[in-house]
Amino acid sequence: MRVGILTIGNELISGRTQDTNASYIARELNIQGWQVPIMMSVDDDETAIAKALDHILGQAQAVIATGGLGPTADDKTTVAVARAYGLKLYRDEAILLKIRGIFERYGLNWIPNNDKQADFPEGSEPIVNPVGTAWGFALNVQGKLIIVLPGVPSEIKRMFPQGVLPVLRRTFPESAQAVATRTIKLSGISEAEVDQRLADADLEGRGVAVGFYPHFPEIRVVLTVRKASETEAQALLKTAEEQVIQRLDRHIFALDDETLEGTVAALLTEKKLTLAVAESCTGGLITDRLTDISGSSVFLERGAVTYSNLAKTELLGVPEETIREFGAVSEQTARLMAEGVRKLGHTDLGLSSTGIAGPTGGSEQKPVGTVFVALADGKETICRKYLFRWERRRVKIATSQAALTMLKRYLATGGMSGKQQV
Amino acid sequence: MRVGILTIGNELISGRTQDTNASYIARELNIQGWQVPIMMSVDDDETAIAKALDHILGQAQAVIATGGLGPTADDKTTVAVARAYGLKLYRDEAILLKIRGIFERYGLNWIPNNDKQADFPEGSEPIVNPVGTAWGFALNVQGKLIIVLPGVPSEIKRMFPQGVLPVLRRTFPESAQAVATRTIKLSGISEAEVDQRLADADLEGRGVAVGFYPHFPEIRVVLTVRKASETEAQALLKTAEEQVIQRLDRHIFALDDETLEGTVAALLTEKKLTLAVAESCTGGLITDRLTDISGSSVFLERGAVTYSNLAKTELLGVPEETIREFGAVSEQTARLMAEGVRKLGHTDLGLSSTGIAGPTGGSEQKPVGTVFVALADGKETICRKYLFRWERRRVKIATSQAALTMLKRYLATGGMSGKQQV
Repeated sequence: MRVGILTIGNELISGRTQDTNASYIARELNIQGWQVPIMMSVDDDETAIAKALDHILGQAQAVIATGGLGPTADDKTTVAVARAYGLKLYRDEAILLKIRGIFERYGLNWIPNNDKQADFPEGSEPIVNPVGTAWGFALNVQGKLIIVLPGVPSEIKRMFPQGVLPVLRRTFPESAQAVATRTIKLSGISEAEVDQRLADADLEGRGVAVGFYPHFPEIRVVLTVRKASETEAQALLKTAEEQVIQRLDRHIFALDDETLEGTVAALLTEKKLTLAVAESCTGGLITDRLTDISGSSVFLERGAVTYSNLAKTELLGVPEETIREFGAVSEQTARLMAEGVRKLGHTDLGLSSTGIAGPTGGSEQKPVGTVFVALADGKETICRKYLFRWERRRVKIATSQAALTMLKRYLATGGMSGKQQV
Repeated sequence: MRVGILTIGNELISGRTQDTNASYIARELNIQGWQVPIMMSVDDDETAIAKALDHILGQAQAVIATGGLGPTADDKTTVAVARAYGLKLYRDEAILLKIRGIFERYGLNWIPNNDKQADFPEGSEPIVNPVGTAWGFALNVQGKLIIVLPGVPSEIKRMFPQGVLPVLRRTFPESAQAVATRTIKLSGISEAEVDQRLADADLEGRGVAVGFYPHFPEIRVVLTVRKASETEAQALLKTAEEQVIQRLDRHIFALDDETLEGTVAALLTEKKLTLAVAESCTGGLITDRLTDISGSSVFLERGAVTYSNLAKTELLGVPEETIREFGAVSEQTARLMAEGVRKLGHTDLGLSSTGIAGPTGGSEQKPVGTVFVALADGKETICRKYLFRWERRRVKIATSQAALTMLKRYLATGGMSGKQQV
């Protein structure tokens, strides 16, 4: 089956915003075994939208359009679709009430304009937006399927699997194959090296599509299998997955929707271990990531963003002499930070980061990107040095990844035995 | 003038590669004052390319196509363009020699296929590629201009200003305009409300294009003006900008490439004030954002992620009774956290956040999304309550935005006089 993609918005064709929706949707459709013959972007303009739909549906059985469903004057997609196919709009009172409800519950001013977010072309089926007020809709016209979604990427990522995929599978049952897919998330390894290590597995040769998606600081390897039956698909996927894990084991930190912070949180919770974190160069990013996990209060006792040397000394008990002699960015300081924050928080584990995020502050012996990460459990303390070659934000992200990876390996291997691996 | 963009390649329509060429070219064209009515991506396929060119040139005087100029079998763009307009190919021997020269210089072995990189449709003008072997070309057909470039972004960024812009300006001399644009970043207000408040300014009516770009937790209002002269453009933009600022002043936190954290950092540095931050529900996100700014160590003394009640009591001196009586999520606790972390860090200012990020932990009186943000300067402490309606991550982001906004207003208004505003 062929499905075209139309992304709508002046921010796209003016180049102000990089369109990420089209490639996300294209990838999801490909995973289902459906082709995307064309992707198009046009302005929030009725005529432009109508022309685009006509051209795309000349080459595809369905089109997924995104953008222009908001309450403002430049949101014209719904009206454009209705006019293009001579349809009236109807107002869905039930949805209108839901939207009003959201506004009332959170004390937001209701603007009359918001009403139009409950208007849909007659004959269309609304698609629920679980994270916003702009609902989408699906419409059958002239034997073709038109699906319209809002333009916000995070909303599309929720609506596509929950609302769009079911409609497509229902409308085109014959083209729905059994698809099995597994995303394997790695870090601390280059894309080229992953590719090389997988070469001898000959996955493609056995009908396993392998996609590489660098997603800083991760590399995502996506295995996709399409078969007549779910059982066949799952069986082939399983063997392929095992081969990948064999070859890349220690770089894998999560599968599918799992995250590194989620895996660490699950392990800490399961093992009933508590954690305190002392951050210098990451500036709170490590605890920010951990607290994205609901329930993190069970294991995260506290964090200390010890940006100044005084804070390292006062809160973590790192002696001034240590900092003077070895520097705030040193193995000695990193170890004492981990041990110090563990004591401060009365926790089982202490995790620390210190480094030079840049762009300034580098030196001959310690260039920008020099980072130390340490983990203390009261018996032992492990520390590892890194040299990251990226700009400030990426150094912070890579450092938080290294720290959480060290912690994950410690938890997964049940102790500092993980040391050799770290 | 209207210029369409066509990006060619299976990696694009399969979603394997994020297309960045289209938005780069669109941005460059807009800066020149030229509109991009349509952007399209299709497969490396002769028919698809021909159809796409035909559709785009139906709506534009020119098209810039990228991709498919390489030596391999799936590089079909040149042939597709020639066939589409019934043109023969000619081989440019001078260019062929240049390409061969590059191969020899770098000791690459020459494969016969490379010859085709010196083939161009008859009547076309080659466009030099200063960093690669795939030259582009410009072709006038049926009163329209077709420009073809390779697909490598780094090569396009060299070829566009050097090779493409001159051809466009020469071909359409009458259409070169001056463009002035301003991005105004707001938060704490809904898109619909921004739209309503700007309604009476009648910007569009006076030739000022207004775009709304929700960019959680911000809303970006982009004003664009095109005039014959730079002076006219700047003048109109200035008056338009003043009108927007008048109507939305207190919600504006930055312009163009400025960020909220960057503005706060600049104000703290300029006023030589130091800051300590106590975070509960934001889990370190506030200090993470502040430490994204190079030089933040000048004003950020430390942060305390007091996730447990014990940490709030031990580090910040929030009495157990206060937490027991009013709760960890309360105005009383938020105020004491801000005052406590200020003392802890010996700083001029103390900033705090406490709230229920959800999805669990909500109650009748304090539903999920209930957040308190406080700021202490040693003389006074201000606190504000919020109720955010989003999921966990967005509650954290919105809370960090509210806290940094409170701090920014305090710094901008020179004291707690900002209180009324907050």
